[in-house]
Amino acid sequence: WASAMRRSGVGFVVAGSGAAVVGLVLVLAAWRRRKLSQSAAATTRSADPRGSGGNEPSRGDKPPKSHKEAPVLDFDPALGVDGRPISQGPDFPLEEIARVQAPFPHRAGTPRQGTLAPHARSRLHFHTYIPPETLRDLDGFSHVWVVFRFHINIDRSKKRQREIKAGARRGFSAKVVPPRAGGKRVGVFSTRAPHRPNPIGLSLCEIESVNLRARRIDVLGLDLVDGTPVYDIKPYIPWDSVPRHALRVPSWVSCDDELPSVTWSAGAEEAVRDLVQQGHLAPLYSKRNPQAVEEVIKAIAEVVAQDPRALHDGRGEPTDGEYTMTFSKLRVGFEIRADGTAEVLTAVLDPGDLLAPPGSYQQGLALRRAEEAKAAEEGRRLRWKYELLEGMTQERVLERLTA
Amino acid sequence: WASAMRRSGVGFVVAGSGAAVVGLVLVLAAWRRRKLSQSAAATTRSADPRGSGGNEPSRGDKPPKSHKEAPVLDFDPALGVDGRPISQGPDFPLEEIARVQAPFPHRAGTPRQGTLAPHARSRLHFHTYIPPETLRDLDGFSHVWVVFRFHINIDRSKKRQREIKAGARRGFSAKVVPPRAGGKRVGVFSTRAPHRPNPIGLSLCEIESVNLRARRIDVLGLDLVDGTPVYDIKPYIPWDSVPRHALRVPSWVSCDDELPSVTWSAGAEEAVRDLVQQGHLAPLYSKRNPQAVEEVIKAIAEVVAQDPRALHDGRGEPTDGEYTMTFSKLRVGFEIRADGTAEVLTAVLDPGDLLAPPGSYQQGLALRRAEEAKAAEEGRRLRWKYELLEGMTQERVLERLTA
Repeated sequence: WASAMRRSGVGFVVAGSGAAVVGLVLVLAAWRRRKLSQSAAATTRSADPRGSGGNEPSRGDKPPKSHKEAPVLDFDPALGVDGRPISQGPDFPLEEIARVQAPFPHRAGTPRQGTLAPHARSRLHFHTYIPPETLRDLDGFSHVWVVFRFHINIDRSKKRQREIKAGARRGFSAKVVPPRAGGKRVGVFSTRAPHRPNPIGLSLCEIESVNLRARRIDVLGLDLVDGTPVYDIKPYIPWDSVPRHALRVPSWVSCDDELPSVTWSAGAEEAVRDLVQQGHLAPLYSKRNPQAVEEVIKAIAEVVAQDPRALHDGRGEPTDGEYTMTFSKLRVGFEIRADGTAEVLTAVLDPGDLLAPPGSYQQGLALRRAEEAKAAEEGRRLRWKYELLEGMTQERVLERLTA
Repeated sequence: WASAMRRSGVGFVVAGSGAAVVGLVLVLAAWRRRKLSQSAAATTRSADPRGSGGNEPSRGDKPPKSHKEAPVLDFDPALGVDGRPISQGPDFPLEEIARVQAPFPHRAGTPRQGTLAPHARSRLHFHTYIPPETLRDLDGFSHVWVVFRFHINIDRSKKRQREIKAGARRGFSAKVVPPRAGGKRVGVFSTRAPHRPNPIGLSLCEIESVNLRARRIDVLGLDLVDGTPVYDIKPYIPWDSVPRHALRVPSWVSCDDELPSVTWSAGAEEAVRDLVQQGHLAPLYSKRNPQAVEEVIKAIAEVVAQDPRALHDGRGEPTDGEYTMTFSKLRVGFEIRADGTAEVLTAVLDPGDLLAPPGSYQQGLALRRAEEAKAAEEGRRLRWKYELLEGMTQERVLERLTA
């Protein structure tokens, strides 16, 4: 499950204590800042942001040290390397190197572990400023780590927005409730939850092929939402595998809750075949690929077997009627029965629903698909900017609809 | 070896093609910037860095779109989410959450893989703005990933400095020469080399204990330099292990070149025992820990077995006399014989060498140890600011020495 937390911010109940802690930190930071500015007034601060250091008032009543006397080893965990409180201002900026193209348009329905949906096909598109030669020899490896950003985990709660306005650059909670831990609240660092101090994620996938000229890597079993920004990739090496006898995880991590079987109704299978063969799932599942239909069917079954419903939609319980998930351009209806088996009932082309509640997933998808169709009609190259929809307020969505 | 590349920037020969590519990228970026500013003059750019988008001139001669018409899906890999070329300015800032305290004061002598030196003991000290509760439940896991910054890989070459001055925020090379690949040049993304577009590193270590109140995690087998800044930690989960039959790596990765045996001279072992029991290696190896002597002896043997010498010092060749490495406060002399076996010959308290060439490792260590001693004498709490020394120019070192 741990990786599931990675994108199912939906499933995450943010623990209340976080806010209080953030508040306390802000008060302490403000106090520290005042002390700092007092000391700055009394001494000369070097302009060199790295070289000065030690401008924090010392424990006793000694006057603050000037540049040349600054202790080389002065490091206070609460201060950055430049002596400013660490929660102020940016520290280490990363530049996007690539973006993910994936059949998962939204967090709901994205597999909670890539290895649990090995037939899901994705692409990493590298930016043009990355020389193709950087990818040379990568095809000698079977697996690669992807370092990405949790880019659509926007906490819309008013409390969090107030905190961020008040100076917290990013909100994070000390504890979170993992989707599959039965309500247990655990420390955020014992999870891979998206709401963490630095929203960096780590995913493993299998390399299928590397296309240097196109700056592209085709991969299998990546558990990331379409459009996810990527900051680094690292080959998987033998030392990354901890042998089973040496590995220990809490019971709430190792619990295997995969559904025992996923069957397909004849109609759903037929529909998938038609839509793939009409090219609707290209380029990831091309109609020229003879395995494409089979791959889509397997990938959807793999996702359904993990029960992709949100907690508040009854995850873990038998369905009361049909639930839906979206895979690429397909809206897939499924039910989960009391005996734990699942059946895929329907598969239709999913254009989204413009009449769905503003800000809802289906309306967001409708806006996105409409833009995609328009771009295709005008012969414009399709490009992505998903943050716009994912993080859009209700007002902004309405504005777009009426524009 | 791959992880070795992580810190042994020393061992890395930066491939020449990188510079040419960076140059080309700069020219293209400048051209794009001009086009952009032309388009900006002709239209209204939204001030909202996230919400506007699509301000890049379209492929044809159509005028750029205004805010409301901006295509939602507009994403050009060469442009950031705000429409500016991606190589300009900061993108995604990370905040340091913790620092590593380790027995490896320098890249040379830091194990190339943590798992190859499982007796090396380190600590992660979390900053005070991180609530202790974030670490709750982490002790249920045996292993943890550490996401860190390659903080001391400062390329001092004039060419790289010119490039950085000319606008490249960070230099990186398309190809690098891994330390153990026999001179083979490979794409930077097929390595874990430190000189990469975003200098993020990934290390695995074993959790020994978690101290919530002290915001501290004691770990074993971490392959990081003392003082390394940490940005995230993530528990190791069963899905992180790729089974051996599914894993494939190039031959230059899997080659096992560990030395068959490392023996100790009686004098060296005696010296280690005395110095540990006098408390010189505290707090990582405390004199109150009855295993400390044994652990230090094992850890040093593990590091020597990997031949910690730099390539230009003859790595892989029998030593011509005694070579040294530094482990915590020990200077360890060893030789590597023609039959591939090694012997640890001496171990002395290493104060560094103030008379060593300015900017050299031994002189840097001397400055640092002098500061440590002075702080201890004055009863000041020891704190760290290693960048100061690691990245120090010759002039700055002299300035400090004569201050």
